[in-house]
Amino acid sequence: PANKKLLILPGDGIGPEVVRETRRIIEWLERRRAITFEIEEGLVGGIALDTTGSACPDETVEAAKAADAVLFGSVGGPKWDSLPFDKRPELGILRLRKDLGLFANLRPAVVLDPLLDASALKHDLVRGLNIMIVRETTSGVYFGEPRGVTTGADGKRTGVDTQLYHEDEIARVARVAFELARQRRNKVTSVDKANVMQSGRLWRAVVGEVHKAEFADVELEHMYADNCAMQLASRPKQFDVILADNLFGDVLSDLAAALTGSLGMLPSATLGEVQPTGKRHALYEPIHGSAPDIAGKGIANPSAQILSFAMLLKISFGMEEEAVLIEQAIEKVLAGGLRTADIMAPGMARIGTSVMGEAVLREL
Amino acid sequence: PANKKLLILPGDGIGPEVVRETRRIIEWLERRRAITFEIEEGLVGGIALDTTGSACPDETVEAAKAADAVLFGSVGGPKWDSLPFDKRPELGILRLRKDLGLFANLRPAVVLDPLLDASALKHDLVRGLNIMIVRETTSGVYFGEPRGVTTGADGKRTGVDTQLYHEDEIARVARVAFELARQRRNKVTSVDKANVMQSGRLWRAVVGEVHKAEFADVELEHMYADNCAMQLASRPKQFDVILADNLFGDVLSDLAAALTGSLGMLPSATLGEVQPTGKRHALYEPIHGSAPDIAGKGIANPSAQILSFAMLLKISFGMEEEAVLIEQAIEKVLAGGLRTADIMAPGMARIGTSVMGEAVLREL
Ligand SMILES: CC(C)[C@H](C(=O)O)[C@@H](O)C(=O)O
Ligand SMILES: CC(C)[C@H](C(=O)O)[C@@H](O)C(=O)O
Repeated sequence: PANKKLLILPGDGIGPEVVRETRRIIEWLERRRAITFEIEEGLVGGIALDTTGSACPDETVEAAKAADAVLFGSVGGPKWDSLPFDKRPELGILRLRKDLGLFANLRPAVVLDPLLDASALKHDLVRGLNIMIVRETTSGVYFGEPRGVTTGADGKRTGVDTQLYHEDEIARVARVAFELARQRRNKVTSVDKANVMQSGRLWRAVVGEVHKAEFADVELEHMYADNCAMQLASRPKQFDVILADNLFGDVLSDLAAALTGSLGMLPSATLGEVQPTGKRHALYEPIHGSAPDIAGKGIANPSAQILSFAMLLKISFGMEEEAVLIEQAIEKVLAGGLRTADIMAPGMARIGTSVMGEAVLREL
Repeated sequence: PANKKLLILPGDGIGPEVVRETRRIIEWLERRRAITFEIEEGLVGGIALDTTGSACPDETVEAAKAADAVLFGSVGGPKWDSLPFDKRPELGILRLRKDLGLFANLRPAVVLDPLLDASALKHDLVRGLNIMIVRETTSGVYFGEPRGVTTGADGKRTGVDTQLYHEDEIARVARVAFELARQRRNKVTSVDKANVMQSGRLWRAVVGEVHKAEFADVELEHMYADNCAMQLASRPKQFDVILADNLFGDVLSDLAAALTGSLGMLPSATLGEVQPTGKRHALYEPIHGSAPDIAGKGIANPSAQILSFAMLLKISFGMEEEAVLIEQAIEKVLAGGLRTADIMAPGMARIGTSVMGEAVLREL
């Protein structure tokens, strides 16, 4: 888009700290590469709750809809843990996904050579690991109705959630996975519990149909979710693209991220449908959460947030060149031996959030 | 119990092969330690489907109810993969859990020193690992109604499952976890997605209430399921007992098992409530499935099945001494350098199913 409208939502915990370093990268792009962004900042999560009474105020949703892309920090923290269910800071991200129709969450799990030691797995099992998890994020048990906790005549409570998938919801996210696979190693592993769940049975059928009709050139494999967790933890390199529903995708993408050992390095994108106007809603956020235990200490790793911005440049603004510049700058900083606390290793130099941002800028 | 009624259900795939070696151990107990079991064999899974038209015939359920303990092999295989949903071999185990009220699935994830190399994780992260996963197995999304795939007026399909938990179902499995923790390292990590799911919110509340009222001496920690997957894959030794619902327990217990690298070594027990008569239904099965790829080749590791029988002796028959004898015999075989294919390592001697059974007998 010509004007590149960007909505930035720092949120809670380390969100504002890592977003701050990302803004320095944005300023560099404006200054050195004469790219102009139209930037707005908004409220989301606990801070939005404190200020406006809602974790995702209408203004934020409107601003997100008007923007060409949203850069999201993280939400939540102990301060809001005891609030009622409808006041959760998490509603910040959940409502944005739902209201903007952000159905395809792309989560790369990548092991960079300089960070091989950070993985809990043996070197040869993760060297060069590069998995892309495609997770459905607007449906399933996260949103299905009925849901709630009710109290019976005997005073006993029952908790209910509904896992519901419509075939179109499955087909559209499957297409995203197959398309990505074509640009990668041409293999999709679709995850479900088709041996237990009815929605899983439909999931498997629809993915198979989309594959047959539109992507027969891509290798497709179906795997039960429990087995997928096992395979990830023992032979992760067998995977290229993993396709999963909202709940399995949540757990498996965090698992895959943890296997890399460098959560502080992993970005994500969540995409909507391409609209008739060509516009496509998109939100970019680091995989790590708000990390309240280290918030405010200036030690968080800003790389995942900066790399989320690089994903934004690539996917939403078609600025592949600038994205690659940023990615390479981060790799060079690592190769030079600088490490934030989360990826610290013997013999390396430990640095904080802003020195890391500084170092990336210097490499740029 | 005086007469020790045992129902053995070999099932499909490698089930019959690993059960065969376990029967040799049983014969040894009868011969050498003058213990008499009243043994019956029954049909379950694909073989039951082929023979009787049902994956879990009524006779099997009746025999299981009449028995003091059930020793289960495994079910499923490609032969039955294309059958309709109500003909799945998996119904074999699902119906037994439901009809016998087997609500507490105990899955140890243990790393034995001689098998340290089998783990994908670095040695110091898993040396001495000993986690117990307590999974709820009679409720949740596995059984909640409504469930099904329906076709709308537009010809489009929708798949629905219901995740439903009643507070008593949560409380009783929580008690099992807390009681186990007291005999171990006194810590329970309860897993949910209370930030997203209503049933998860109830889960967290009820586990907290049971803790406060009855087990305040045990350390209790709540953890989101995605974070738990992450923590398992990076710092597994932080856990003692993990308590989870049916679906999260399925995925997380397989993950924990995979981390040990020796799936072929891991047993499990699934327990019902203690009835007024003192009787308690119980089923014992290896964690590994039917492994159709190696079925019939005589190379499966019978240890998990034999160790499941040891768990049976301990929990259902109070025969701690015999159980320990069997466990030690297996450890000695490993220490002696014998390995089945699944746990093979350089410098060890590769053996098949029956030689492994033989070796255990010799150590006994
Ligand atoms: C914060 C939470 C609601 C969210 C989710 O479960 O989707 C998070 O875990 C994620 O994966 O983005
Ligand atoms: C076979 C299948 C139905 C079963 C389950 O999902 O419970 C299995 O994965 C298990 O964990 O025992």
